[in-house]
Amino acid sequence: MNSTSSMPTFESIKQAFERIKQHVKQTPIVESSLLNEWMGQRILFKAECLQTIGAFKIRGAMNFLARLKEEGHLPKYVVANSSGNHAQAVAYAAAHFGIKATVFASENISPIKAAATQSYGADLKLFPTRIEADNAVKEAAKASDTVWMPPFNHEDIIAGQGTAALEALEEVGHVDAVFAPCGGGGLLSGTLLATKALQPDALVIGAEPAAANDASMSLQAGEIIALKEAPTTLADGAATPSVGDITFPILQELDDFYEVDEIQIAYWTQWLHHLLKLHIEPTCAMTMAAVASWAANTPKGQTALVILSGGNISQTAMTKIWERDFLLQPPILDTDDNMEEE
Amino acid sequence: MNSTSSMPTFESIKQAFERIKQHVKQTPIVESSLLNEWMGQRILFKAECLQTIGAFKIRGAMNFLARLKEEGHLPKYVVANSSGNHAQAVAYAAAHFGIKATVFASENISPIKAAATQSYGADLKLFPTRIEADNAVKEAAKASDTVWMPPFNHEDIIAGQGTAALEALEEVGHVDAVFAPCGGGGLLSGTLLATKALQPDALVIGAEPAAANDASMSLQAGEIIALKEAPTTLADGAATPSVGDITFPILQELDDFYEVDEIQIAYWTQWLHHLLKLHIEPTCAMTMAAVASWAANTPKGQTALVILSGGNISQTAMTKIWERDFLLQPPILDTDDNMEEE
Repeated sequence: MNSTSSMPTFESIKQAFERIKQHVKQTPIVESSLLNEWMGQRILFKAECLQTIGAFKIRGAMNFLARLKEEGHLPKYVVANSSGNHAQAVAYAAAHFGIKATVFASENISPIKAAATQSYGADLKLFPTRIEADNAVKEAAKASDTVWMPPFNHEDIIAGQGTAALEALEEVGHVDAVFAPCGGGGLLSGTLLATKALQPDALVIGAEPAAANDASMSLQAGEIIALKEAPTTLADGAATPSVGDITFPILQELDDFYEVDEIQIAYWTQWLHHLLKLHIEPTCAMTMAAVASWAANTPKGQTALVILSGGNISQTAMTKIWERDFLLQPPILDTDDNMEEE
Repeated sequence: MNSTSSMPTFESIKQAFERIKQHVKQTPIVESSLLNEWMGQRILFKAECLQTIGAFKIRGAMNFLARLKEEGHLPKYVVANSSGNHAQAVAYAAAHFGIKATVFASENISPIKAAATQSYGADLKLFPTRIEADNAVKEAAKASDTVWMPPFNHEDIIAGQGTAALEALEEVGHVDAVFAPCGGGGLLSGTLLATKALQPDALVIGAEPAAANDASMSLQAGEIIALKEAPTTLADGAATPSVGDITFPILQELDDFYEVDEIQIAYWTQWLHHLLKLHIEPTCAMTMAAVASWAANTPKGQTALVILSGGNISQTAMTKIWERDFLLQPPILDTDDNMEEE
C-alpha cells in the first residue's frame, strides 16, 4: 500500500523535528577560514555526512515510520526504492522500529551503500535499471501489511529532510543564502520550506549534475521532465530520473538553480575534503559550484549555509574524484573561465 | 642558534597545555559504532585532523614559540626542517607570533603541505634529500636572532604534542590502551608521558611503516639506528630518517610497537575515511593495524584511544590509497592471514 501524502508545510517540519530529534544526531556546523577568505563570504556547512548512516536521509525515514507508529499504522513490512542513501536510511529506520525492510535498487547502486543497507538487516533486490526497480517496488507494496516508503515525494520524507536546515538555521542565526543539492528534491524542498519560514529574506539555491539535469529542465519548462536514460555522474545521490509532483511545486519557489559539470563536482569534492577534513559525497560538494558563483556575484561579507548531505562514497567514485590534482591552486571563483577540461 | 632542551616530563605537558590552550582547537573525540561492533572493543579517536593546520603539529610549534616569548627570548626569525605538517605548524605559529619563518624540506614534500606552508607566509627552501635539508637548516640557524625549531627532538615540541593525549584522556576518562603513530617520535613520546602520568595502567602502543622501520630497529637494538635512504611510504608523516636522543629513551618505555605494511596503511585509511567520515592521513590510519591486532588479542569490551594525527593528504597519495577496493568486506582482525597482496 502507498501511504497517502499531503503537501508538506513548515508545520510538518517542526512536527518532524519533535518526532525524530531523539533518534538522529545534531550534526555540527563547520567552516574553513581559508575558504571564507578566498570567497570573501562566510560559508557554513551543516555536516550531515556525520549523521547516522552517513547522510541526512535518516531524518526522512525516521519521520515517516515514527508518524505511522504515532498514528497506530506501523506496518510489519516496509519496501523502498533508492539509489543509495535512502536504502540505508530505510534499513536503519526499519530496524529501529523492529520491522522488516526490503530495498529495490538498480545494479549500479554504490557497492558501499549496498553493503551498508544489508548490514542494517534489510533485504536488497537489484534490477538492471532504476526504472525497473521503481516498478518492482510498486508491485511489492501491494502485499498485505506492507508500506512503500518513497525516497522523496512524500510529505513526511520532505518534512524529515527539512529538519536539517531547521536545526542549522536555529543554531547559526541569520544567513543570506542556503544551498542544497537536488536529486528527487526531497532535501532541497524541505530546505526551502524551513528557510523561507525562518528567514524569508534568505535566498534558497539548488544544484544538480549537468549530466542529470531533469530538475533544471523541468524548472525551465514549468512541468516535470524525466531523464530519458540513467545518467553517468559522480553525484550518484542526484542521479534520480525525475523530481516528484510534491517536490516540484516547492522547487518552483527556488531563487536560483545550477547545473554542475562533472569536472567541477570532482574539483569541489577534493577541495572540501581538504579544507574541511571531512569525507564528503560529490553530490553535496557539487553545490559549491553554485556557492562560488553566488559568492563572486554578491557583495562581500555575507553568510551562506550549505547542507552537506552525506559521506558515503564508493572506491570507484574516489578514484575518479582524485584522478586529477586540483589542490595545487586555491579555489577559483570564476568557474566558467577556469574550469575548462585540459 | 639551537634552543637548548631538557628531557620533557608530565609537568612540561601540563605547562604546555596552559600556554597553548587559547591558541589551538579542542578537537572532538569520535567513534564508529560499526567499528566498535566489529572489533569487540570501543575505539575512541582524537580527531587532530580537525586541528588548526589540519594536524597536531601546531601544538608543539605554538608551545615552542610561546615558551620563548614567555622567557623573553622570542627571536626575529625561526627556521625549521620538516616532511610536511611541522612545516605548516612552524609557518602558522611564526605568523601568530609575528616573526618570519623559513622552512627547509626535501623536494618530495607533499605538494599540498608545501602550498599550505607558503600560504601561511613562510619561505620554503627545497633540497634533493631530507638529509641535505636537515644540514641546511643547521647552517641557517647560525644567523643572528634566529632560532631553529626542531620537528620533534625537543622538550617543548614533545610537551606540546603530548597535550593532545592529555586533552583526550581528561575528556574520555579510563582507557585500556593508547595508540599513536611514530615518525621522529614527538607525538608518540608526548602521548606516552601524558598517558603514563594520568593512567599508569593503560598500555601505550606505537606504529610506523614497515618501509620506514627505523624506530622499530632502534627499539630492538637498544640504540638509535637511522634509515639508510629516504623511504617510500604512504605514511609520509612517519618517513623521518631516525628518532632523536630525547624521544628515544621515552619510546623505550612503550608497551608495544608495530611495523605496518603499505597495503594495511591503505586499507585502514579507506576504512577510517568511510567509517568516521573524516579525511584522515595514512600516517595515523596506520595505527589501526596495531589496534586491530591488540583488539583481537585482548579480552572484549575494552577501550582504546587513537590519536588521529592529521588530515593533509596530497592528490598523489589519495590515488594510491584508493587504487584497490577494500570497502566491500568489513575490516578483518587477523591481518596477517588476510592482508596478503593479491
